[in-house]
Amino acid sequence: MNIYIRKATENDLAEMLQLIKELAEFEKEPEAVTVSMAEFHESGFGKNPVWKAFVAEIEEGSQKKIVGMALYYIRYSTWKGRELYLEDIVVKESYRGRKIGSLLFEKLYEVAQKEGYSGMMWQVLDWNEEAIRFYEKIPGIQFDESWINVKLRL
Amino acid sequence: MNIYIRKATENDLAEMLQLIKELAEFEKEPEAVTVSMAEFHESGFGKNPVWKAFVAEIEEGSQKKIVGMALYYIRYSTWKGRELYLEDIVVKESYRGRKIGSLLFEKLYEVAQKEGYSGMMWQVLDWNEEAIRFYEKIPGIQFDESWINVKLRL
Repeated sequence: MNIYIRKATENDLAEMLQLIKELAEFEKEPEAVTVSMAEFHESGFGKNPVWKAFVAEIEEGSQKKIVGMALYYIRYSTWKGRELYLEDIVVKESYRGRKIGSLLFEKLYEVAQKEGYSGMMWQVLDWNEEAIRFYEKIPGIQFDESWINVKLRL
Repeated sequence: MNIYIRKATENDLAEMLQLIKELAEFEKEPEAVTVSMAEFHESGFGKNPVWKAFVAEIEEGSQKKIVGMALYYIRYSTWKGRELYLEDIVVKESYRGRKIGSLLFEKLYEVAQKEGYSGMMWQVLDWNEEAIRFYEKIPGIQFDESWINVKLRL
């Protein structure tokens, strides 16, 4: 099975939104995804894009299929400057264990280095042991449990 | 004493960086601020600005002085869409207790509503009781301690 990692395009949005919904189910909050296709499109490919993404694609016979994605945006740390913020890395459940997550992560690492960001940042749920074990293997990784997320819905 | 809340300009950058360094001292990591004036300028007022900010200014005699700031950027939640991320809200120590933080926060809330974001998000250190008490008073606020920050310096 060949896996291709490439930049996401507008044509991928429907499959990507499907993956996002699968992740929300895994994180036990299927009802939480309220983003619409219109907003997803506008924020990625509109006048002022906020996010970018890579997808992992496989070929099955003559069919291409997206089985994973990594979505990110540029955040700003007043201490360190621009950083790549990894919002979501998702691999379709039936394709896990084939290093697709690693390929996506390595691509983002490459982008972050090439574009000169001071670091990468993301968050992991404290009960998601599989993800924590995955991240622990990355040289130089730092976990910081001293911050609380605060949210206000509008 | 009159306090003016206004958008930050390029002329404010030196005073803002000073406030950022004061906050890092308060958070017990004075050495952690490695951002340079050149990067701070480029990322706020260059070709592809990442952050925006408001400052709180007072007049003392004929002198104007910045005594607080709120710096933010647009983040992307794959579940909720675009959100305003409040990176830092800082008030000079000798000017605390005069509602300057509230004025800055209210300004960001107004911006987030006007620009149609789905929410606001930020983080607070788990030992920063003063800040937690401040945020607890905001109607609709949600605290979420289940996420761990993960970082990789480049």
